[in-house]
Amino acid sequence: MKSDLDALMQAKNLDALVVFGNAEHNPPMYYLTGGGHVSHATIIKKRGEEPVYFHADMERDEAAKSGLKRIPYSTYDFEALYEKASRNALLANAMRYELMFKDVGVSAGRVGVYGTYDLGAIFGMLTHLQKLLPGIEFVGEPREDSIFMRAMETKDAAEVERIRRMGIITTEVVGKVAEYLTSCAVRDDEVLLKEDGSPLTAGDVHGMIRLWVAQRGAELPSGFIFATGRDAGVPHSAGDPDALMKLGQTIVFDIYPAEAGGGYYYDFTRTWSLGYSTPEAQELFDQVREIYDTMYDNFDLNAPFKNYQRMICEYYESKGHKTPLNTKAPVEGYVHSLGHGVGLNIHERPFSGLTTSDDQRLAPGVVVTSEPGLYYPEKGMGVRIEDTLWVRPDGQIEKLAEYPYDFVLPMKKWKKG
Amino acid sequence: MKSDLDALMQAKNLDALVVFGNAEHNPPMYYLTGGGHVSHATIIKKRGEEPVYFHADMERDEAAKSGLKRIPYSTYDFEALYEKASRNALLANAMRYELMFKDVGVSAGRVGVYGTYDLGAIFGMLTHLQKLLPGIEFVGEPREDSIFMRAMETKDAAEVERIRRMGIITTEVVGKVAEYLTSCAVRDDEVLLKEDGSPLTAGDVHGMIRLWVAQRGAELPSGFIFATGRDAGVPHSAGDPDALMKLGQTIVFDIYPAEAGGGYYYDFTRTWSLGYSTPEAQELFDQVREIYDTMYDNFDLNAPFKNYQRMICEYYESKGHKTPLNTKAPVEGYVHSLGHGVGLNIHERPFSGLTTSDDQRLAPGVVVTSEPGLYYPEKGMGVRIEDTLWVRPDGQIEKLAEYPYDFVLPMKKWKKG
Repeated sequence: MKSDLDALMQAKNLDALVVFGNAEHNPPMYYLTGGGHVSHATIIKKRGEEPVYFHADMERDEAAKSGLKRIPYSTYDFEALYEKASRNALLANAMRYELMFKDVGVSAGRVGVYGTYDLGAIFGMLTHLQKLLPGIEFVGEPREDSIFMRAMETKDAAEVERIRRMGIITTEVVGKVAEYLTSCAVRDDEVLLKEDGSPLTAGDVHGMIRLWVAQRGAELPSGFIFATGRDAGVPHSAGDPDALMKLGQTIVFDIYPAEAGGGYYYDFTRTWSLGYSTPEAQELFDQVREIYDTMYDNFDLNAPFKNYQRMICEYYESKGHKTPLNTKAPVEGYVHSLGHGVGLNIHERPFSGLTTSDDQRLAPGVVVTSEPGLYYPEKGMGVRIEDTLWVRPDGQIEKLAEYPYDFVLPMKKWKKG
Repeated sequence: MKSDLDALMQAKNLDALVVFGNAEHNPPMYYLTGGGHVSHATIIKKRGEEPVYFHADMERDEAAKSGLKRIPYSTYDFEALYEKASRNALLANAMRYELMFKDVGVSAGRVGVYGTYDLGAIFGMLTHLQKLLPGIEFVGEPREDSIFMRAMETKDAAEVERIRRMGIITTEVVGKVAEYLTSCAVRDDEVLLKEDGSPLTAGDVHGMIRLWVAQRGAELPSGFIFATGRDAGVPHSAGDPDALMKLGQTIVFDIYPAEAGGGYYYDFTRTWSLGYSTPEAQELFDQVREIYDTMYDNFDLNAPFKNYQRMICEYYESKGHKTPLNTKAPVEGYVHSLGHGVGLNIHERPFSGLTTSDDQRLAPGVVVTSEPGLYYPEKGMGVRIEDTLWVRPDGQIEKLAEYPYDFVLPMKKWKKG
């Protein structure tokens, strides 16, 4: 939680931190400021002190919403610095940062570097700043192990409610998609038809999904997945928009909307087969469903998350599928890991890969996905089931949004002949 | 244009470039790959050679759409490197990059660093990589002056058509908002009413804007502006969602949709006053409109863009307004610069600030905004007019989407009493 930041800085021997970039779509900046339309901002925080928020004058109203101590960039005479730096923009910017660090009282020690922003501009500026401030050591942390990822790993009640609200929006939209698909007319070749009689494509459905999410005020990363046939068998294939929607094909629908402006995410997947299923796809689905339920029933408070990845690999291998346990980077079978934390990042701690550290646990306050799957692209099939789960302070696992698991969705205007 | 990249690398004495991050919402990566749902990718390009695209196996289908030479990360045994690096993730990642640079044939020289990604992870990795590859000097460029920003500064015909398509979507949505607002019933206190009789807020209109943009398959950065009253007087205030929409107040509507997935933008602003205008606001508007038209008529092929910023400042000062020409960071009057390039970045070269370099010109192929404004937050007023313009290869200036400039929008169900 945010209140852990100072202790995490201490544990990593960081005397201060600096966050670069915009307030939106930039998790560490959003975490400290609460978001808002503030671009090219900077936060400097000394350990044990409140963050200081540097921003452009024009964005003062948006920055003020953070409630943080603020300093507008206009405090520093950039034009004079630019001339003094012989019109070297990176050096002039470094000279401004030298003054900013001075104003926050940071002149020595280890300073962690965070944020999502233009790498060249910051790398180039830091190269100069390191020379201007030889008493400071600028430190980059691995993303998954950084103090922010560790602080974000556990959520407070207000954060969980925001994730839950995204879960409600997600399942509403998924329900509308199911209702639409099952209401379609069906052509003799089992292709679904739109109201105007033309074939329904995956792209048509992508458009509806975008619209229904936007209507609810959320934003949808464009990589959401509504994929059919072979595309469903490749876990991160978004789905060919020109693919025709047909009966009896696996459809993987993986959707992860976020609060507008780069806030909290929800992550969710269902797999459907319209009208009927092939016996082979039904068998795959049944295996995934069984392991999903088994995992859900077995999650234990404070257990390392990767234990369940090992468990699921062993189960799948007993059924004859390849998994990362004994196959390097498999392209069919079970090809990813069981889940990940969800918050301001769609993928965050705790992770569940086999080589993940033991301290990534189902601790009270974590919010994680459970998303077993099986993929056979060459057979044109893929199955995944995913919900977002909260490990409550009382140790109970709570699914943040309910939605049925049905695989075969009966068509209202069609019956198996 | 993209074909200028090798010459730009040569001019900056760069032997190679590396781009980090996702293929979406990451302009240099999008520029080279064409976008797609590919996360944590890397591009390495030697000067004079084609880019090489490194990506996760799971995202191979999306990466293949780029048409580039591809190498999956699984080529490198990360787990072995991780053990060899004594489980130091940043060092192991640097060791992998050492192999990747070797495979592309880059072992010495200056390598430019680009992309939008987690700063700490890349800064930390590069600190290690610099030691592993002492023959390479990693170089960060200032964002506005980088080889990518310079290549992107001029657009080819296909890029312009994509921007124009966003312009059509933008003006359609703006037209729907105007139609909605002018059709509202009006209460005695001049507050607009929704169909259900409750007051219309700026937030209600924000929701409609989001919906209508999504319906057209585009994405809308959440910082778009539909602001009224005092908010309209602060150029980057997004607008208080709880503000009631009233007659006779200036409304600044600044909207910049992009192709889904972080593609090309369009940038557009109109200022309205519903039903009637105060004489003071009308006078402000008339001044902005006059200078907008004067600028449009005077743009000359290949003129430095900042010349027009000087011209507009002089005009406004002659009318008694503060401007950046003689006031440092003014908060009222004319407080920003005339325009900027638009493409895969909402703000890119050429820029028009007074201290901008002379080489940022209205060259053939640039796409720029012209957006004069006047702001008086304490008087509750702001005005801005903005279109996106293309400097065609034949030297003509072409507005990429037409929309009327009317300031006072007559209300259909209300007449000034």
